[in-house]
Amino acid sequence: MALKKYKKDYSYSYALGEFPTIELINSKPDKAIKVLVNSNYKGSKGQPDIYDFCKDKDIQTETNDKFFTRISPKENCYVIGIFEKYDLFLQEDKSHIVLVNPSNMGNMGTIIRTMVGFGINNLAIVSPGVDIFDPKVIRASMGAFFKLNFKYYNSFDEYKNSFPGHHIYTFMLNGASTIKDIKHNADQKFSLVFGNEAKGLDDSFLKEGTSVVIKHTNNIDSLNLPIAVGIAIYEFSKKNIY
Amino acid sequence: MALKKYKKDYSYSYALGEFPTIELINSKPDKAIKVLVNSNYKGSKGQPDIYDFCKDKDIQTETNDKFFTRISPKENCYVIGIFEKYDLFLQEDKSHIVLVNPSNMGNMGTIIRTMVGFGINNLAIVSPGVDIFDPKVIRASMGAFFKLNFKYYNSFDEYKNSFPGHHIYTFMLNGASTIKDIKHNADQKFSLVFGNEAKGLDDSFLKEGTSVVIKHTNNIDSLNLPIAVGIAIYEFSKKNIY
Repeated sequence: MALKKYKKDYSYSYALGEFPTIELINSKPDKAIKVLVNSNYKGSKGQPDIYDFCKDKDIQTETNDKFFTRISPKENCYVIGIFEKYDLFLQEDKSHIVLVNPSNMGNMGTIIRTMVGFGINNLAIVSPGVDIFDPKVIRASMGAFFKLNFKYYNSFDEYKNSFPGHHIYTFMLNGASTIKDIKHNADQKFSLVFGNEAKGLDDSFLKEGTSVVIKHTNNIDSLNLPIAVGIAIYEFSKKNIY
Repeated sequence: MALKKYKKDYSYSYALGEFPTIELINSKPDKAIKVLVNSNYKGSKGQPDIYDFCKDKDIQTETNDKFFTRISPKENCYVIGIFEKYDLFLQEDKSHIVLVNPSNMGNMGTIIRTMVGFGINNLAIVSPGVDIFDPKVIRASMGAFFKLNFKYYNSFDEYKNSFPGHHIYTFMLNGASTIKDIKHNADQKFSLVFGNEAKGLDDSFLKEGTSVVIKHTNNIDSLNLPIAVGIAIYEFSKKNIY
């Protein structure tokens, strides 16, 4: 295994930072290959440090300062968890988020953090879309990534045909229903579908399930994608969390 | 005026990109000093381009490719609006967002975009906090910045004493009320208060107005700040937008 800047075709990736690495160790210990610790690392007083977590799960640690400057020269990063990539599938008996052609890694990480925060742990990605294993996604998710089920689909139809029992809601600026008027039957699982950052969903999605708009003033063009997803998840998961 | 990378003590700043620059021209034309256009710039077919906007408001344009590589080497940026900084005050008869010690420029820009999107155009910042005139804030706001009223305060007390008529809601992980249970009197203006990205609000804020929690699962530490602000704004402004 070469310690190099991440590339999409690698069979492994990196969790950058102590917090995401602890999430890796707790949620996917069998996928952790090794944990690198910078010699400047200091744990929090009186709390278990990264060595304790690794010892507990029998994960190898290594001091290797050179790799830190190579991989995250600007950031305060003292711990890197190296892990093997894995395949997952989506749970049929749970609600999903569907991102069609997402293009921004930070946005995807923020969306994952919000999803996991509201108990929606299944993410479908319609290709082409950013690489979910990219360290930038994992870091922006604050490690919530390791609690997520995800799967790539070649087309929206392929996704839709895999989960015929889900009620589909497509979020569009010209959606037919406003989000506050949606009366979702809590017994049915839902799929909340969002388009690409720049282009949104095209009009063909008006015919899929129920199209929904989150209304805003004319003073902006559109909401930021993670904000729109966050508001939608909040509205739809209200009943489950509170 | 030196064309250099932005610094906080400059009396002017930059709107990077065509869309934010058009927002500058439309919302604060009297503050626009000059618009730089890259020689690779191409407007959208059949639509008014940046030259039309500038001509309409009598704003000088200049082709200057060198400055583009200096100021935003990585980004697809073909238009830069240079503008004079300005002082504003908050409207007493409107609701406010209050950010206590915000530390991330991208977050502040995203929050501004969401605020303007939901018709809340007044932002108080309790110092120390990031420089709202930094081009990174303006770019992340997609130019919504130019529709915003904002003001820095030396302390939360200074802000609070300036607006005794506002009902204060402090957003905290240990807030006393959950957001969905809040019954806000629509006749009264509100101030939604949020802490720093890393630390949140300290416990002294439990005594200010009504403390509120946006509940989430134990699978994450906290929501991302712009997501929390977005959900709060959405919930509080529901009545006004729909």
